[in-house]
Amino acid sequence: MKTIDEKFRALATDHAPGQEVRQKAGDLAAMMRGDILGGVPVDFSHGDVDAFPPTPGSSEAWNDGFGRGARQAYTEYRGSAPIRERLAARLGAFTGRPVDATSELIITPGTQGALFLALGATVTTGTRVAVVEPDYFANRKLVEFFGGERVPIPLRYKGTAAQNGPDLHAVESAFSNGTTVLVFSTPNNPTGVVYSHAAITAIASLAASHGVTLIVDQLYSRLLYSGESYTHLRACERVPDDTITIMGPSKTESLSGFRLGVAFGSTKLIDRMERLQAIVSLRAAGYNQAALDTWFAEPDGWMAQRSREHEAIRDALLGVFRSGGLLTTTPQAGSYLFPEVPPLTVDGASFVRLLRHQAGVTVTPGSEFGPGLSQSIRLNFSQDHAAAVAAAQRIVRMVEIYRA
Amino acid sequence: MKTIDEKFRALATDHAPGQEVRQKAGDLAAMMRGDILGGVPVDFSHGDVDAFPPTPGSSEAWNDGFGRGARQAYTEYRGSAPIRERLAARLGAFTGRPVDATSELIITPGTQGALFLALGATVTTGTRVAVVEPDYFANRKLVEFFGGERVPIPLRYKGTAAQNGPDLHAVESAFSNGTTVLVFSTPNNPTGVVYSHAAITAIASLAASHGVTLIVDQLYSRLLYSGESYTHLRACERVPDDTITIMGPSKTESLSGFRLGVAFGSTKLIDRMERLQAIVSLRAAGYNQAALDTWFAEPDGWMAQRSREHEAIRDALLGVFRSGGLLTTTPQAGSYLFPEVPPLTVDGASFVRLLRHQAGVTVTPGSEFGPGLSQSIRLNFSQDHAAAVAAAQRIVRMVEIYRA
Repeated sequence: MKTIDEKFRALATDHAPGQEVRQKAGDLAAMMRGDILGGVPVDFSHGDVDAFPPTPGSSEAWNDGFGRGARQAYTEYRGSAPIRERLAARLGAFTGRPVDATSELIITPGTQGALFLALGATVTTGTRVAVVEPDYFANRKLVEFFGGERVPIPLRYKGTAAQNGPDLHAVESAFSNGTTVLVFSTPNNPTGVVYSHAAITAIASLAASHGVTLIVDQLYSRLLYSGESYTHLRACERVPDDTITIMGPSKTESLSGFRLGVAFGSTKLIDRMERLQAIVSLRAAGYNQAALDTWFAEPDGWMAQRSREHEAIRDALLGVFRSGGLLTTTPQAGSYLFPEVPPLTVDGASFVRLLRHQAGVTVTPGSEFGPGLSQSIRLNFSQDHAAAVAAAQRIVRMVEIYRA
Repeated sequence: MKTIDEKFRALATDHAPGQEVRQKAGDLAAMMRGDILGGVPVDFSHGDVDAFPPTPGSSEAWNDGFGRGARQAYTEYRGSAPIRERLAARLGAFTGRPVDATSELIITPGTQGALFLALGATVTTGTRVAVVEPDYFANRKLVEFFGGERVPIPLRYKGTAAQNGPDLHAVESAFSNGTTVLVFSTPNNPTGVVYSHAAITAIASLAASHGVTLIVDQLYSRLLYSGESYTHLRACERVPDDTITIMGPSKTESLSGFRLGVAFGSTKLIDRMERLQAIVSLRAAGYNQAALDTWFAEPDGWMAQRSREHEAIRDALLGVFRSGGLLTTTPQAGSYLFPEVPPLTVDGASFVRLLRHQAGVTVTPGSEFGPGLSQSIRLNFSQDHAAAVAAAQRIVRMVEIYRA
C-alpha cells in the first residue's frame, strides 16, 4: 500500500503542459551554449486559442445561458437535460450509434474530467488496467492514483500508417491475464496515430469476449486529415456493454477555457460517473454548458477550413523537422507532433528547459507519455502558422547546437 | 477492502440536492392524503439565483476574461496568477492572516472542488478522519471514497447559541486516538451554527498539539446575522501547519453557475491539491476565474443589503415553523434552516417526496447530513421572500396532514 506522500510524488506536475511558468531558470545559464535565439515565443504545450479562436457563437451562448438564470446555473450533476437531449442526437449521428440522452450521457468539466470520472468509476485498489505507451500522460497517473496496476500495451508509431497501431498480441494477453479495463486515445496523443478499422474491431471484439471495460478517448476524432478514415469503436458489431467514449470541444473547437467534455455509453458506468461528479465538483459550470449548443453545429465550412489550416501547419512542420533530421511520424488526425531528437550533449529534460529559455519554445517532454521516451518532444501545432514554422526552425537549430 | 460496487453504492445521489428531477413519482399517489396544495413551487434544495442574482459585474468580468483569450483560457492548474494575487490580499484581510498568492492559494471548480482536493490530498486507505454530525453530506462520502475511516464528532445544535457547538471531548479523544484529519463547516451546514471563539481556538490548539490536519469549510462566513461574531481559525495564535481554509462565491454571492471556489493555507497541501487538480479537471474554467475579481469587491452596501434580506426571510420562516410546532435552531449565519418534523404516519424519505409531489416544495432529507437525522429537513432559504413563506406554510400544513 502506498503512503499518501508516495501517491502524490507519482502525480508530479513539474513538466506538465502549462505548468512551465512555475519552473525556475536555475542552472540553465551554466549549461547554455551560444546566444538567445530571437523570435516570437511559441507555447506548443497547448493550442493557441488566439490563433484558432473559439467556435463562433460560443460566448453568445454563454451569455444566453447566464441570462436563463437559475435553471442554467443548477443543472443535474450529469448536465442540463435539454442540452444533453440535443447533444445526444449529434453524438449518435457522428459516432454511428444512438446515444440515450437520459441514461447514456454525462457532461463533464473538460475531457480531463471525463477521463477522471471514467477511471474513478472502474479502477480501485488492485484493478489491472491496460494502458497504451505512448499515450496521454494522465492515463497512467489516474490508474496509479486510484490504486490500479498498470499493464503496458506498446503502440507502434514510427512506421507507415499501415504498420502503426497497438500491439494486439499484448492486448489479448493482457485481457487473458486478469486485466479488466483498457484505456486509450485514438487519434493517439502524442503521436497522431489513428487506430485502423482492423485494430478497433479486434479490440472491441476481444474486450467483449473477455468482459473488459473500454474507455476510448476520441478527443481529436473530428480533426481528420486528407485521405484518412476513422472507425468509431462504439459502433462496431461486437462491443462490450461497459464501453465509454470520451470527447470534448476543448481542442479543435478551442473551447478549453469553458472546461467542457462529454462521456457516453454504458448506463451503469455513466451512473457511477455522476455519483463521483457529485463529490468532485457537482457539475460542469452551468452557464458554460450552454456553449455545447454550438458544438457539432458550427457554421457551414468552418470545420473544413479549420482542418485545412491545421493540415497546412502539419505539413510545414513535418518538412522542417524531417529536413533537420528529426524522425517524425505523420499525424493522421489531431494537432500533435512527436518528433524524436537525435542524441544530445544534454539530457532530454534539460533540452526542453533550454528550448524554453534560449529559443522561446515551450514543448512537453516525451517522458510524460511513457517510459523510455525522453528523446522525443510533443508539440501542439494548433498555433499561428508563421510563428510555428519559425519556432520549429529554432528547435532544429537548438538540436544542431546541442548535438552529441 | 470495499469492491468498486460497494464504493459506488455509498455514493448514492438519489436524495442529493438538485437530483430530485430524476426521481419517479412511483407509489406516491397511493400514499397521498387529500389534494395537491396549490402555490408557487419552491426548490429549497439550493438557493434561487433568480431571487438573489449574481454579484453585479460578474458576467461582464466573464466577457472580459473571454476577450483576453489564450492567457485567460490556459491558466496554471492552481488558477490565474494575477487573479490569485488580487484574491490573496482580500482573503488575507478578511480572515485576519496573510495569504501568499504563489504558494498558499488554489482556485478550484467550486467549494465542492476544493473539498474534494483537500480530502484527496490528506486521506488514503485507513486514514482516520474526524467528521462532524450533522455536517455537509459530501464530507462523509469523500472520506469513504478515499478509503478513510470516519470518526464521528457530535455537534450540539438544538440549544441556545451558547450551548451549541462541537463536542470538544470527542475532538480531543479522536485526536488522541490516531485521527489525523478533521473536516468541518462553520457556519455549520445544515444547522447554521457558528463555532464560538472558544471552540475554534480549542480545536486549533488541540490540532496543533496532536499534529492533526484541519480542513475548515467557511463557505458561508460572510453572511453573518445581526449581533453574531465569527472567528477565523487560521488567524488563531496556535494553528497546525497543515490547515486548509475553504471558501467560494457560490452561495451568498450567487455565482454557483460559474463553479468557483478557493482553498488556502499549507503550502504542502496546496501543492498536492494542484497535482490532484491536474488529473481531475486541469483547472477551474479559465474564463470563469475572471469573475473572482468581483468577489470581496462588491458595490458599497451590496453585501449589507443581501444580509438584511436573508435575515428577514430567516426570521419569517422561523416564525412559521415554530408556530407550526417544528423545532428549529436559529441560524447565526448562512441560508440554511434545519427544522425537525414531529412523528408522522410516513417515513422521512416518503414525507420529503410527498412534499415535492403534493405541496410543490423541494427540501433535502436530514438523513443526508448524518445518521439518525431522518426527522429533520434542510432548506436553503435564499429564495423569493413571499414564495418561501407560503412554501413554509405548506410544509406546516403537510405536517398536520401526516402527523402520527
